[in-house]
Amino acid sequence: MELIKKPVTGMKEMMPREMEIRNYVMKVISETYASFGFTQIETPCLEDIRNLLSKQGGENEKLIFKVLKRGEKLNLSEASSEADLTDMGLRYDLTVPLVRFYSNNANELPTPFKALQMGNVWRADRPQRGRYRQFMQCDIDIFGEPSDAAEIELILATTTTLGKIGFKNFEIRINERRLLRAMADYAGFEGDRFGTVCIILDKLDKIGLDGVKAELLAEGFSVESVDKYCGLFETVTNDLAGLKKMKELLGDSVAPEVIESLNDIIESVEAVKTADFKMVFDPSLVRGMGYYTGTIFEIAIPEFGGSCGGGGRYDKLVGNFTGTDVPACGFSIGFERIVLLLLESGFQIPGSKEKCAFLFEKSLTPAQYVKVLKEAAELRKEGKTVLVVKMNKNKKFQKEKLTAEGYTDFKEFYADSFGA
Amino acid sequence: MELIKKPVTGMKEMMPREMEIRNYVMKVISETYASFGFTQIETPCLEDIRNLLSKQGGENEKLIFKVLKRGEKLNLSEASSEADLTDMGLRYDLTVPLVRFYSNNANELPTPFKALQMGNVWRADRPQRGRYRQFMQCDIDIFGEPSDAAEIELILATTTTLGKIGFKNFEIRINERRLLRAMADYAGFEGDRFGTVCIILDKLDKIGLDGVKAELLAEGFSVESVDKYCGLFETVTNDLAGLKKMKELLGDSVAPEVIESLNDIIESVEAVKTADFKMVFDPSLVRGMGYYTGTIFEIAIPEFGGSCGGGGRYDKLVGNFTGTDVPACGFSIGFERIVLLLLESGFQIPGSKEKCAFLFEKSLTPAQYVKVLKEAAELRKEGKTVLVVKMNKNKKFQKEKLTAEGYTDFKEFYADSFGA
Repeated sequence: MELIKKPVTGMKEMMPREMEIRNYVMKVISETYASFGFTQIETPCLEDIRNLLSKQGGENEKLIFKVLKRGEKLNLSEASSEADLTDMGLRYDLTVPLVRFYSNNANELPTPFKALQMGNVWRADRPQRGRYRQFMQCDIDIFGEPSDAAEIELILATTTTLGKIGFKNFEIRINERRLLRAMADYAGFEGDRFGTVCIILDKLDKIGLDGVKAELLAEGFSVESVDKYCGLFETVTNDLAGLKKMKELLGDSVAPEVIESLNDIIESVEAVKTADFKMVFDPSLVRGMGYYTGTIFEIAIPEFGGSCGGGGRYDKLVGNFTGTDVPACGFSIGFERIVLLLLESGFQIPGSKEKCAFLFEKSLTPAQYVKVLKEAAELRKEGKTVLVVKMNKNKKFQKEKLTAEGYTDFKEFYADSFGA
Repeated sequence: MELIKKPVTGMKEMMPREMEIRNYVMKVISETYASFGFTQIETPCLEDIRNLLSKQGGENEKLIFKVLKRGEKLNLSEASSEADLTDMGLRYDLTVPLVRFYSNNANELPTPFKALQMGNVWRADRPQRGRYRQFMQCDIDIFGEPSDAAEIELILATTTTLGKIGFKNFEIRINERRLLRAMADYAGFEGDRFGTVCIILDKLDKIGLDGVKAELLAEGFSVESVDKYCGLFETVTNDLAGLKKMKELLGDSVAPEVIESLNDIIESVEAVKTADFKMVFDPSLVRGMGYYTGTIFEIAIPEFGGSCGGGGRYDKLVGNFTGTDVPACGFSIGFERIVLLLLESGFQIPGSKEKCAFLFEKSLTPAQYVKVLKEAAELRKEGKTVLVVKMNKNKKFQKEKLTAEGYTDFKEFYADSFGA
C-alpha cells in the first residue's frame, strides 16, 4: 500500500534552510534571555482537557486538537458527546501550561521566577497563507514581582533580543487595562459594556476613528459618550506629554498609580535601552486575551503590517489554579513572523562555519577512503564543516548544487592519483 | 473553579536545571552533526493516522495518541469504531515522518540527503520510572547512499558527538540482518520461523545462552539445530577474527559482501575514530524494528545497563510511500538516557557564563533603578549573565539560593548610599 506523502492539513514541513534560521533565532533568544537571568522550562505538549477548556483561552478554546481516550476509559457505545471521548488536548498557548507549572512547582522555584519557554502550540484554525496549525511560541514571564520592575525587565530583554537579531527602528506600544476602563468610565459608557467598547476600539487600525465612532453609535451608545471617548484619541499624543494630558482629562476616573507606572516604564526603558526602538504610549492598544489585569504591550516592526508579539500583566491567573493570586507578567515574541521575514529577506546567519566538500571517486579502496575520512576529521577539529560525498558523473552540476548549499571549498580524491 | 495542577499522566515537566543540560546536549548534537554535513529538518508532530497505522511501527502502533476529528467530519452518532473518530495521531517515532518527508520533497533535497532530526515523540506506554509518554528523539539518517560509506559516516558522527558530550570507553555493537538470517539457515531453522528465532535470541543478555537454548527447544526446534545455532555464539569472538570465523562456519549460507561490508565498517571506523570507544562485532544483536534490511548497530555505554541508542539500514521503507525503494540508513541517539545520566551525575556544563546578581533595595528611586539597569546592561555586553532582583528581608538566605543557582558574583544597591 502506498502511504500519504503530504503533511497533515495546515501544518508545515521545515526544510534545511528554514531550520538553520529557526535554530539561529532560538539561539539568540535563549542566550539573550539567559543573560537577563531567565531560566528555561518546558511542559508537556498535552494538557488535561479540563485546564484547556477552563475559559482562560477565549476563542482559542474552540480550536483545540483533542486526544481520544485510550483503553478501558474509551467507551464508544456509551459516549454521547465529545467530552466523553477525550481526556487531553494539545496546548493552544504556553501561558496556561506555564501557570499550571508554576502552581505545581512554586515551592521549588526562585522568587521572583523568571521563565523562558520555547515550544510548539496547536490551533485547528482555518488554514491560510503564512498561518499554520502548529507553530512555535517564545514567551518570557515573571512571577512574583508586583512592581513595574517586571515590565521594564521584560521589555528590555525582549528589545535587546530583537536588536541582536538585527531589527531596528521598531516600536513597543504600551497601554494599561485599567486606563482603558477609566477611559470608558470617563466617556460614560456602562460598566458592563466595557468588553464591547474594547472589541470596537481594537479595530481602530483597520477602520479608523470614524469607523470606531460609527460602530459605537450602532451599538446604541449615546452621541455625547462616543464623542467624548473618541475625542481622547484626537487630543492625546503617543508620548509622555500625551500620558500627562490623559491624566488631566480623566481626572478622578483613573488611579494615579496607573499613570505613574506607565510613565516610569516608558522613562526607564528609554533611559536603559540598548536596541534601536521607541517606547510609544498607545491608549488605543487593547490586546485580546481576557486575562490581562494591568499593563499591556505590543511589538510593532515596520517591515510587518501588524503586531509581532506582545504581552502584559495577568495577576489573577495563578489564583485560578491555586486559589491564591500571584503577580505575573509576560511577553511573547512573534517567532514565526520573525523567521518568515528573515527567510524571505535572504538573511545570512552571522559567524557561519567554513564549509568544505570532499568529493571522492567511487572506486577508492577502503584504505584510501579511510585517508579521506581522516583528513575530514582533521579539518572538523579546526572548526570547519566537512561533507564527504561520492563524486557524481556530472561533477559540475554537483558542485553547483553544493555551492548553493553554502559549500565554498572543494577537494577531489581519485583512486589512481592517491598517495601523492 | 480550581484547575488541575499536575501534568498529564506519564509526562514530564522540565525544571531549569534539566533544561540547561538538554539544551547543552542538543547544541553539541546539532553542531557536531552539522560539521559532518547533516542538515536539520522538522516535520509536524501530528501525522495522518493512516501512515501511523501502516504496520511500519510494530508494537508502537498500539501506543498512539489519536486526535479526534473536528467540525463536520466528526459524526458521533454514526461512529462505530475508533477509526471513524480520528484522522491524525501524535508520531511515535521520527523515522516514519522522515520517510514521508523524503518521499514528499525528494526533488528539492540533495543526493545523498543527510538529515538530522531532534523532536518529541509520544507513546501511550504504561508509566514507569524514567520512561515518559513524551520524549525526545535525535536521529540522523542518510538517504540515497547504498554503500557502507553511509554506515561509516553515521557511526563516526554519532561517536564523535558522544565523545564531545564526554562519554568514554563505550562500544558500538554491529551486526547484519542478512547474517542473522544466514545463521538461522545454517542451523537448519525453517525460514518462516526466523522471526521467532530472533525474538528468542534478543533475550540473550537477560537469560544467557542456556536460556536461549531452552526457549528454542520449547518452541519445538530440533536439538541438532539448536546446538548448531548456539554453538555459533560459543565459537565466534566479538572481533574481526570472530567475523572471519563466522564466514568459515557459515560458508555458502552467507553472501560474501555481507561479511566484507561488516569488516570494512569495523576497520574503517576503528582507523578514523576520534572518540574513546570500540567497534564490536555482535552476532547476537537483533534490534526490534521489522523494517531493517541490512546492518544494525547499537550504542552500549558502561554507565547504562542497556542500549543507549542504535540504528541500521532500511532500504525498503521509502518504497512503501513511493513505490520505488531508496537506500536509507539511520542512527538514533538515546537522548533522554544521556540527559538523565548527566543530570544524576551532577554534570557541569563547560564554558558557562559568569553569573552576577544585582540585589537592589525596594526603596530605590526610578532614577537610581535606571542606574542599576544600565550597569547590568554594560556587564551583559561583556558576555556576563546579570540577574537584577529586589533584595529580600532575609538577604543571606536569598544569596544562598542564588549561589545554588550558579550565581558567583553579588552586588548590592542601597537607596541612601547611591551615587557614591
